[in-house]
Amino acid sequence: MWDGGGAGAFQLPEWMIQFADQKQEFNKRPSKIGRRSLSRSISQSSTDSYSSAASYTDSSDDETSPRDKQQKNSKGSSDFCVKNIKQAEFGRREIEIAEQEMPALMALRKRAQGEKPLAGAKIVGCTHITAQTAVLMETLGALGAQCRWAACNIYSTLNEVAAALAESGFPVFAWKGESEDDFWWCIDRCVNVEGWQPNMILDDGGDLTHWIYKKYPNMFKKIKGIVEESVTGVHRLYQLSKAGKLCVPAMNVNDSVTKQKFDNLYCCRESILDGLKRTTDMMFGGKQVVVCGYGEVGKGCCAALKAMGSIVYVTEIDPICALQACMDGFRLVKLNEVIRQVDIVITCTGNKNVVTREHLDRMKNSCIVCNMGHSNTEIDVASLRTPELTWERVRSQVDHVIWPDGKRIVLLAEGRLLNLSCSTVPTFVLSITATTQALALIELYNAPEGRYKQDVYLLPKKMDEYVASLHLPTFDAHLTELTDEQAKYLGLNKNGPFKPNYYRY
Amino acid sequence: MWDGGGAGAFQLPEWMIQFADQKQEFNKRPSKIGRRSLSRSISQSSTDSYSSAASYTDSSDDETSPRDKQQKNSKGSSDFCVKNIKQAEFGRREIEIAEQEMPALMALRKRAQGEKPLAGAKIVGCTHITAQTAVLMETLGALGAQCRWAACNIYSTLNEVAAALAESGFPVFAWKGESEDDFWWCIDRCVNVEGWQPNMILDDGGDLTHWIYKKYPNMFKKIKGIVEESVTGVHRLYQLSKAGKLCVPAMNVNDSVTKQKFDNLYCCRESILDGLKRTTDMMFGGKQVVVCGYGEVGKGCCAALKAMGSIVYVTEIDPICALQACMDGFRLVKLNEVIRQVDIVITCTGNKNVVTREHLDRMKNSCIVCNMGHSNTEIDVASLRTPELTWERVRSQVDHVIWPDGKRIVLLAEGRLLNLSCSTVPTFVLSITATTQALALIELYNAPEGRYKQDVYLLPKKMDEYVASLHLPTFDAHLTELTDEQAKYLGLNKNGPFKPNYYRY
Amino acid sequence: MWDGGGAGAFQLPEWMIQFADQKQEFNKRPSKIGRRSLSRSISQSSTDSYSSAASYTDSSDDETSPRDKQQKNSKGSSDFCVKNIKQAEFGRREIEIAEQEMPALMALRKRAQGEKPLAGAKIVGCTHITAQTAVLMETLGALGAQCRWAACNIYSTLNEVAAALAESGFPVFAWKGESEDDFWWCIDRCVNVEGWQPNMILDDGGDLTHWIYKKYPNMFKKIKGIVEESVTGVHRLYQLSKAGKLCVPAMNVNDSVTKQKFDNLYCCRESILDGLKRTTDMMFGGKQVVVCGYGEVGKGCCAALKAMGSIVYVTEIDPICALQACMDGFRLVKLNEVIRQVDIVITCTGNKNVVTREHLDRMKNSCIVCNMGHSNTEIDVASLRTPELTWERVRSQVDHVIWPDGKRIVLLAEGRLLNLSCSTVPTFVLSITATTQALALIELYNAPEGRYKQDVYLLPKKMDEYVASLHLPTFDAHLTELTDEQAKYLGLNKNGPFKPNYYRY
Amino acid sequence: MWDGGGAGAFQLPEWMIQFADQKQEFNKRPSKIGRRSLSRSISQSSTDSYSSAASYTDSSDDETSPRDKQQKNSKGSSDFCVKNIKQAEFGRREIEIAEQEMPALMALRKRAQGEKPLAGAKIVGCTHITAQTAVLMETLGALGAQCRWAACNIYSTLNEVAAALAESGFPVFAWKGESEDDFWWCIDRCVNVEGWQPNMILDDGGDLTHWIYKKYPNMFKKIKGIVEESVTGVHRLYQLSKAGKLCVPAMNVNDSVTKQKFDNLYCCRESILDGLKRTTDMMFGGKQVVVCGYGEVGKGCCAALKAMGSIVYVTEIDPICALQACMDGFRLVKLNEVIRQVDIVITCTGNKNVVTREHLDRMKNSCIVCNMGHSNTEIDVASLRTPELTWERVRSQVDHVIWPDGKRIVLLAEGRLLNLSCSTVPTFVLSITATTQALALIELYNAPEGRYKQDVYLLPKKMDEYVASLHLPTFDAHLTELTDEQAKYLGLNKNGPFKPNYYRY
Repeated sequence: MWDGGGAGAFQLPEWMIQFADQKQEFNKRPSKIGRRSLSRSISQSSTDSYSSAASYTDSSDDETSPRDKQQKNSKGSSDFCVKNIKQAEFGRREIEIAEQEMPALMALRKRAQGEKPLAGAKIVGCTHITAQTAVLMETLGALGAQCRWAACNIYSTLNEVAAALAESGFPVFAWKGESEDDFWWCIDRCVNVEGWQPNMILDDGGDLTHWIYKKYPNMFKKIKGIVEESVTGVHRLYQLSKAGKLCVPAMNVNDSVTKQKFDNLYCCRESILDGLKRTTDMMFGGKQVVVCGYGEVGKGCCAALKAMGSIVYVTEIDPICALQACMDGFRLVKLNEVIRQVDIVITCTGNKNVVTREHLDRMKNSCIVCNMGHSNTEIDVASLRTPELTWERVRSQVDHVIWPDGKRIVLLAEGRLLNLSCSTVPTFVLSITATTQALALIELYNAPEGRYKQDVYLLPKKMDEYVASLHLPTFDAHLTELTDEQAKYLGLNKNGPFKPNYYRY
Repeated sequence: MWDGGGAGAFQLPEWMIQFADQKQEFNKRPSKIGRRSLSRSISQSSTDSYSSAASYTDSSDDETSPRDKQQKNSKGSSDFCVKNIKQAEFGRREIEIAEQEMPALMALRKRAQGEKPLAGAKIVGCTHITAQTAVLMETLGALGAQCRWAACNIYSTLNEVAAALAESGFPVFAWKGESEDDFWWCIDRCVNVEGWQPNMILDDGGDLTHWIYKKYPNMFKKIKGIVEESVTGVHRLYQLSKAGKLCVPAMNVNDSVTKQKFDNLYCCRESILDGLKRTTDMMFGGKQVVVCGYGEVGKGCCAALKAMGSIVYVTEIDPICALQACMDGFRLVKLNEVIRQVDIVITCTGNKNVVTREHLDRMKNSCIVCNMGHSNTEIDVASLRTPELTWERVRSQVDHVIWPDGKRIVLLAEGRLLNLSCSTVPTFVLSITATTQALALIELYNAPEGRYKQDVYLLPKKMDEYVASLHLPTFDAHLTELTDEQAKYLGLNKNGPFKPNYYRY
Repeated sequence: MWDGGGAGAFQLPEWMIQFADQKQEFNKRPSKIGRRSLSRSISQSSTDSYSSAASYTDSSDDETSPRDKQQKNSKGSSDFCVKNIKQAEFGRREIEIAEQEMPALMALRKRAQGEKPLAGAKIVGCTHITAQTAVLMETLGALGAQCRWAACNIYSTLNEVAAALAESGFPVFAWKGESEDDFWWCIDRCVNVEGWQPNMILDDGGDLTHWIYKKYPNMFKKIKGIVEESVTGVHRLYQLSKAGKLCVPAMNVNDSVTKQKFDNLYCCRESILDGLKRTTDMMFGGKQVVVCGYGEVGKGCCAALKAMGSIVYVTEIDPICALQACMDGFRLVKLNEVIRQVDIVITCTGNKNVVTREHLDRMKNSCIVCNMGHSNTEIDVASLRTPELTWERVRSQVDHVIWPDGKRIVLLAEGRLLNLSCSTVPTFVLSITATTQALALIELYNAPEGRYKQDVYLLPKKMDEYVASLHLPTFDAHLTELTDEQAKYLGLNKNGPFKPNYYRY
Repeated sequence: MWDGGGAGAFQLPEWMIQFADQKQEFNKRPSKIGRRSLSRSISQSSTDSYSSAASYTDSSDDETSPRDKQQKNSKGSSDFCVKNIKQAEFGRREIEIAEQEMPALMALRKRAQGEKPLAGAKIVGCTHITAQTAVLMETLGALGAQCRWAACNIYSTLNEVAAALAESGFPVFAWKGESEDDFWWCIDRCVNVEGWQPNMILDDGGDLTHWIYKKYPNMFKKIKGIVEESVTGVHRLYQLSKAGKLCVPAMNVNDSVTKQKFDNLYCCRESILDGLKRTTDMMFGGKQVVVCGYGEVGKGCCAALKAMGSIVYVTEIDPICALQACMDGFRLVKLNEVIRQVDIVITCTGNKNVVTREHLDRMKNSCIVCNMGHSNTEIDVASLRTPELTWERVRSQVDHVIWPDGKRIVLLAEGRLLNLSCSTVPTFVLSITATTQALALIELYNAPEGRYKQDVYLLPKKMDEYVASLHLPTFDAHLTELTDEQAKYLGLNKNGPFKPNYYRY
């Protein structure tokens, strides 16, 4: 298993899927339609809950399915399906706000005024539909591409943004609260269109790729490449590749340096604080916290909590990460040793059943339990669904689980990802990811024949460096250039790449 | 060039050599003896200055060359050459103190009471000869090996330790202040011995390997492997390998995770403070510092100085490292932008002429300039050797360079490595390196035929993890073990390795 | 002016009042009723906006004034006036949650099972009515006191909590959204009651004290003391004292060590991050921030932002605080020097017009401006109300102010206190304040005649220490006790006080 | 006892004296001369050991007592007594180096070119004689004063600096290694001089004041004031004052804000690391440390060690400081709870027997024990002088104390102050103190009659602020000035003072 080493290491993003788990889950659900047979591979990410904080103007009064509505944008087009086209104006403002924090994409647009590196590209996309995605889509458009888009998650679409995109002419098929049937219908509307055939795929989770693979395998003949963002989708691609069934080049942008270090270390350093505050209003100073796993996510959580005056313990299975925790000033313990005394338990392992019912039984009153690492497997939440325990929903995403003796555990987001459910992801981090996606599309679309085979590729280091360089102006950061003499001395090209592939940063 | 990407990244240790530079340097020096032709490849590391703090009982009154002395240890052996066998007792105490902080090697000794994984091994070694090295050598002995040893640097031998080793029966040929001729004579005495032929090489800088290669090429037939510790030596091995001339397997322990992260990040985090304090007694709080390079060394320096209340600016050529600096809270600048205002300039780039005469001319009065990165190329010290500037040696390793207008620059260690010259390296860090060397020797010596070819290998990740695990007890750190169910879920062996090779830590 | 030194020093809490400002403000407002003449001294704090996040179950459908409703609690009492007595159950749960984080008050209750230090006390109170206040009131009850309570702010009452208190028998007169007339009516209902006369006052802002002073001056004959919590109220008391008109002892709990250091330094360290995240979702890493004022509030803000990777500049007028900023690693600048480059401007000075229109004109696009220090005077918000600037409310408490050239400034909470408006105050901090209030009441009520004159007193240091000690169990913290020998050596009583009065902590 | 609250709070500097202890100590010592009766009050500080690192060119070959030598400076004067006038040139260079880091005094000199605020002042001084003191003395001279000087400690004089002062005409009577008799002889030579009578006293420890009091009580008639720097001396002054025997005004500069906060918090933050490194070369990362006392010194030690990756526990007797430790992220424990597990024990309490033999018996092997707080009472070192324990001096200031079972404790500086013995004090900190002394002298000398009575005064806050402001240029720090409107609003003078006296900083 390629990413098996993930324990304590990666943040397996929210759309991570464990096929075994997922199958069971879907078996329990009644299938709605005949198309059900295809949906057995819908990724868990597609149905993950998503912070309701992201909604703006929705009122729940309109129960009509968007599929049953007749809508037109102001230019008369009906080639889209969104909740309510009238929300376009609000969505446009959100997009404009996002543009201000996505300088790299805006810079790409400027460069594209002369050349159109994606001229002729027909991109079909399946991602979360947010203001940031909209900036990406409109950038792809500015670079010359035609786009059609669906959502990769049935809850994550911002209806206003979808409306704004539809209004400005993008065929978008997505709304918040799609049914599973709606989900596949939307994807199908993107690809199955008269007189238009995609030649590039931008996927997040692999559902779009899977759908084309199952329904329209011939379509791959025209496709020049797939860009995949998620752990899950990448995992599927490697499996296809291993099985000899991958028939186009694919770019794994999940493992780029910028994504790994920024999405995980730096982003979690901020979102752990945000998530805990918004849900519990707790004070960090003096609190005892145990963080399970000292990978990038764990490192970020530990650094933030230590900085805010918490006393942090770490558990690890990997002796190298464990030694890092020691050198960084954290006591390395087994969970059992501190479980009675800690105020907060945070899991960041990518593992399952890290926090068991036995642990939960021994926690002290008011202990907060949350997960920063993996879908919903790290904390054995199922073990808490027993008759003697009382669940009390005290706020959105906050449950008190009450033992017979009155002890309460504060469980956040029912053990799902805290930072997805209870905090927001800074636009700046999304900007890095979106820029990486755009560059990967450009690279695959323009690569000379033969540069990429029918395999899964990592982003060339030089492009990783380029993404980083596009974000430096945000910080008014000034890069030093090598002199000719220095470049020669170091044996480097002045424009990079600057590091060997194994460099750890 | 394999490590060409080093700018701002690696700490290129003190014994790093640039062949081009070195040749010129040696061309200028008069050769002393006929053997000179061989010595053209003596590494610069062999002649680097070394902290005098490391000496204990030496008085300078004894000017007789050790080569001219007749010495015997208490058991009657004369198969060694040290400064003064009578210093053995003092050296033994230093070794005993070191043993207390090298728990991993002591643990290896305990395990070796039953099995002798190095039984039959005949190791010839060429390293710094310090108390820590002595613990390594005696551990190798306890594991079954016979050892003969020379120094890899003409200044770095602790005479008392060498005496203690000789007293307890190790054929050691080394003293502080060897001439270049002495240097090669000592190496030769290690390998050119009647009735004994080495089958393993432990080298630090590549001089020993080079000597055997040039003088006794046939000796390689019996040699099972080379373990090389330094950037320079590893560089030489890769060159040999590239040229098809490497005739035994070699293990590159320089690039092991534990060495990179601990020798560089954590060690420099401490030694930058130590080196500056010991030389200048300066106060860190409120000082403005520019750190050139944000690799592991730069990261360590920046973290320490920020933590102590300095205001730190960073320069970088690599946009990814640059973005890390930004996210870690440092202003990224060009050196020119801050050179007039900073109180301290620290180089950690692995590059040359990072600080030029022009920069030095513009620094403010009392600015401290030092190098944490590379031999002596980062600061253009040569440019300061001009008639209008006055040099004043104010303390050991501290020069005031005085401009005609009275401005003084405080130059530390003449631009050579600050932490080698002006601070000490914690035993704990040396323990990690020594343990890695011991394990690499065991691995190569015991590897089944065919596992290693005539190439340069990185330490298997599992051994890297093992080295780390041996050091955890020092911190009373308790590792968590995977359950069977978890190991299966993650697709991992419960004993590791726990991460894919590309994992960045 | 007693607290004139506040520049950059104190956090002048939200209920701070500047009499001069206030009079103007009230002069502009039409008086509603005949009682208006009395209300000229209503404190600004009484009308400050208050985070709407604090509301739970309110629906806006019930527009009937509570004063016009007939309500009874389950025991048949009508001696209260709240929004809706039916919300009592929800409020009780909030109180129970708060109890869990107010261990000191709960400990006081336990001790009170034997002795009733407030037996016979008749306390009239006027504070924010929150779950934490409820825990205080019920503790006072458990200690033997009878209480009647009104709100000190027309917006800050949690209706559910007020209902819960009324349900359990406390005469509470308060609801969210009182008119100014309601405000005084509620206070009057507390004090003007047949057959009951208060003998203790607990005030927050001084409005209650003022009311009694104006309307029922004879009531002071029976009053044993006033406990005042706010800067404003304390200021009023010192003025009364100076004018020789203070006729009972008063305790200034605002300047106790625990309140100053914890409410300001530690609380702001957390709430600055919380407030910025909840309003803007910004990323802290790499952002350039200028913090105006390096008092306790500024110190807290700077420490938190530096810890999260921001680059922080400080402005100060006081050279001692300025030197502290330097030693703590912050560049000390004038606002003009950095105003063009910073991403965030935070004021914590207690001063006025620290950020002027000129500064605002020069800020870069997207700059965030907020206030942690003082009512609403620090940022000259009024100067932004000019025709050429467009205001756009993008979220609750977040305005974009847009210049003709498109530049946007992000103004938070319209320049009012960020941490009151946009974040929550941790219960733990409120617990410290509430415990201090309770102890001050006990001290004044039980003090032997003559200990306190008609003056304003600081809390005795020993009680400050006692409040601290009651909070240590929360952190499982174990205090060391002096031996007899040590106490003698130090000349201290083993039970404290442990420091001279001028000790700075 | 005025400073009785010192436990865990102040750093009681090295020259702190406990009269009870001291008397016993001196009773045990044989008196050497008839003058002995006077010397019973020699302060302990006068005989404290002092870092030998401070010596430069001394060779121990010259055993002649300076009192028996005939020496003249180049201008023919013999009115001094130093070790060797020929060392003047070296000393001058040290003074010049110190001048570069004492910008405030140099600024005072510049201002004094026009006015001579000390014209007519005849100052007799008794302080450590170091390069920094020399800069102070020469500044006093430049301000118009005549000075005569002796050393306040028998070990702390830098002979080269004393020589340089003598060479430039200052009557200095001091050398390193004075006997007790020499000590009083030197002081007497300063005050008992034909045709010259002091009118100002600058004292450090109170010995000079005490001598004049005992021997020349009439001299006080002409003396306008005493400036005292040390805790001990200040303590003596308060005792005199209490006893009604203080006959001139005295200025307590020990308790000025700048001295307390900078000498203690910031200086110890740096010197704890420096002292530990220079003595033990230990690595801080991952080490478990217990710090006894969380006053300014403890706060500094804890902050530094935490920042360098140590895991820090704190013990406290004062609940307020204890709560601060909690909020700052340290576990508050009793020493017993962690004594078995820690790697380092640091005392900063100002108390006695904080570390007892029982604690020492339970420490683990290689535990480092040192004192940052008080003379030599905090660690019960005497209890280690028992026959079953072996002492081994392994380095200067480093002893291994070895238990019968082989366990070793590493005791630093025999329990005396680590930062005085094993590290250096940054010139910048000394600059703050020296500037404060100079300003206090100016204030007392120029104060109009009646401003100061025969009492002990704290430095006026405005002068404290002035000292701070003189040091800001070192950091290129730019202070903001209040506008007229702002000053009026705050009720402050634009030039300060800016805070009320009780402000805690």
